[in-house]
Amino acid sequence: MAAHTVSPLAPAAFPQLPEIGGVTLHTATLGIRYKGRPDVLLAELATGTSVAAVFTTSTTASAAVRWGREALRGGTGRAFLVNAGNSIAFTGKAGEQFVADEVTATCKLLSCEKNEVFTASTGVIGEPATANRITDALPAMMEDKASWMDAARAIMTTDTFAKGATATADIGGTPVKLAGIAKGSGMIEPNMATMLAFVFTDAKIPHATLQAMLADCNGRSFNAITVDSDTSTSDTLLCAATGAAGNAEFDDANGADLAGFKTALETVLVDLAHQIVRDGEGASKFITINVTSALNDAEAKTAAKAIANSPLVKTAIAGEDANWGRIVMAVGKCGVMADPNKLTVSIGGIPLAHKGERVADFDEAPVTAHIKGQYIDIDVDLGFGNGSATVWTCDLTHGYISINADYRS
Amino acid sequence: MAAHTVSPLAPAAFPQLPEIGGVTLHTATLGIRYKGRPDVLLAELATGTSVAAVFTTSTTASAAVRWGREALRGGTGRAFLVNAGNSIAFTGKAGEQFVADEVTATCKLLSCEKNEVFTASTGVIGEPATANRITDALPAMMEDKASWMDAARAIMTTDTFAKGATATADIGGTPVKLAGIAKGSGMIEPNMATMLAFVFTDAKIPHATLQAMLADCNGRSFNAITVDSDTSTSDTLLCAATGAAGNAEFDDANGADLAGFKTALETVLVDLAHQIVRDGEGASKFITINVTSALNDAEAKTAAKAIANSPLVKTAIAGEDANWGRIVMAVGKCGVMADPNKLTVSIGGIPLAHKGERVADFDEAPVTAHIKGQYIDIDVDLGFGNGSATVWTCDLTHGYISINADYRS
Repeated sequence: MAAHTVSPLAPAAFPQLPEIGGVTLHTATLGIRYKGRPDVLLAELATGTSVAAVFTTSTTASAAVRWGREALRGGTGRAFLVNAGNSIAFTGKAGEQFVADEVTATCKLLSCEKNEVFTASTGVIGEPATANRITDALPAMMEDKASWMDAARAIMTTDTFAKGATATADIGGTPVKLAGIAKGSGMIEPNMATMLAFVFTDAKIPHATLQAMLADCNGRSFNAITVDSDTSTSDTLLCAATGAAGNAEFDDANGADLAGFKTALETVLVDLAHQIVRDGEGASKFITINVTSALNDAEAKTAAKAIANSPLVKTAIAGEDANWGRIVMAVGKCGVMADPNKLTVSIGGIPLAHKGERVADFDEAPVTAHIKGQYIDIDVDLGFGNGSATVWTCDLTHGYISINADYRS
Repeated sequence: MAAHTVSPLAPAAFPQLPEIGGVTLHTATLGIRYKGRPDVLLAELATGTSVAAVFTTSTTASAAVRWGREALRGGTGRAFLVNAGNSIAFTGKAGEQFVADEVTATCKLLSCEKNEVFTASTGVIGEPATANRITDALPAMMEDKASWMDAARAIMTTDTFAKGATATADIGGTPVKLAGIAKGSGMIEPNMATMLAFVFTDAKIPHATLQAMLADCNGRSFNAITVDSDTSTSDTLLCAATGAAGNAEFDDANGADLAGFKTALETVLVDLAHQIVRDGEGASKFITINVTSALNDAEAKTAAKAIANSPLVKTAIAGEDANWGRIVMAVGKCGVMADPNKLTVSIGGIPLAHKGERVADFDEAPVTAHIKGQYIDIDVDLGFGNGSATVWTCDLTHGYISINADYRS
């Protein structure tokens, strides 16, 4: 594979992530597909860690996802085991055996229950493999601790930079910390994409409460981004709360006691989701699409996703062209309640089209200046309801074609 | 505008289309946007011509489409008036006036009712214009007859070749003829990506019967193609049956008497639809996607469209890569009933994946040979129902990005 240059939208550096009590990271460099970098991650979790998760809605989900859906019923976890380079998706019985072997080996090492081990695999679909390279490496992996940077690198595929985010909160007077890592970067429309994200906190939070908060925040973070409208077979978001912070336990996911934590959780998820968009294959622009005054929030999100996924809108922005007619087209095609005579379209905060026609004194110059930047804002006001949604995406460039037309060659 | 090269998938020549009794073609070269070629078409129809139509489902449809939906209630037509270069879409009251002025001027010339005049406009969205250049030119246009080739050229925007198709049938012992023209998306200004198609026959067929046949055949032709998943604000398919052939009249759209005609109609629509895909922006491959054994036909079409619209599938084919994992992904994301353990994926007629895993003795060489050709066949068998659908698309190449990102720059 050709080396990919780092996305022009990459952050300046990998963030400083704090140690999270109850979480120990281990990595290995097995060369499954990628050479000279870690490609297996074992996140070891303290006994009693609450686990919450959101998985792909794909009906052709990978063996790891199918196992994770099962294991989540227990609500606790002792390990997340992740490999990059082969997604083990669509590999039939061999895939199921791969996951089972990983789980058995990890249980043995950690003396835990099977449903306390969650696995994730990312890479090529449909390449059968056995787990023994990974299971054989586990004992040696346990001997060394890895950094967040190593952990974030171990889960990358075509990502051009490692992704991490952190936040802090206060629960009942006790400070708690959160740290998360994620990978993109193609096949991304996380309905609940090969999007993988792992978030860790030392907060003590019961499973059901953590699950409710994770699902809610996921709707406004990973489920609000799209790179190419393609939903992976392996999308997995796992969250572990170890309880090492020793905070008082609260169980109302929407209560005042956990409000600060929930905000911190959403901050970490949105930060990681944005980093995935910023590393979207071939991305040169980060696009924020706000739809307001829709019939309801769901319709607003449908319209925002239609704009975000329109190849014509995405290529116009790649070409730095304020072609608002394509935005109107995308709204029109998606089936939400819309009336051309009520629609307002703004780019960079400047209304270009209002109530069914071009703004009379519309001057393209300031809009063109905005569109030459790296961060593009598109606002669409549908003009009749209270629904709103924000979706983030990137532009569609020659880079996307080069990366994807050459992936296996 | 830069000159664009003819699609590599273009037919060798424009077909020989027969004269259709009751249809007289007129064109004008007004230079609305394109220079040195006709850009206005008036198809004059005999008194009593039945008209059927299918319009875009866009909620931001153009003024011409909104007028056409109204006018169709009458069921008859005396004229189709079409211009290329400006779609008059999203131009508010100015757009409604444009269409009203066209209709009024045409009625006066032909001494007919307003709802017997259908208009269509294709080109840039959101550019206000008045109709007087066109209405002023109508009397002079009427003095000369144009050829099918001229008519097909008059409706092109950035199409790289003129599109026409013909077929014959027999109704109650009387031979009837059909001729159609269409335009698709061209190579440089795809915000003009508007599908227009006009089909003419000398058969005598009542409006309701013609409408039922057109709607049905449209589902298996124009509604079974996709270039980039973006739906125009102006898509229009108009069909005129003049009755000049003098056949006996039959009104059962599904009856034996009209079966031959319906087959001929579908042949013309599918031929034109294929020509639009063959002129898809940047297209280098023509892809046929067959989905079988789905829960029902609707689910089969949803799955086929998901594959056809997946940027990852389209770029893999552009890269001549038999990456069937992306096909499995597309089926999984679209929400139709699917079970990885029952799924079979074939490329070029060769099964690559069967019942949840790669075919054991799978040899990529013959598949790769197929994929290096211009015509690619993808077959997906979902393994449990009787539903089936066929969808046609093209690959996603650097050409698409260049065409769409370089517009206006």
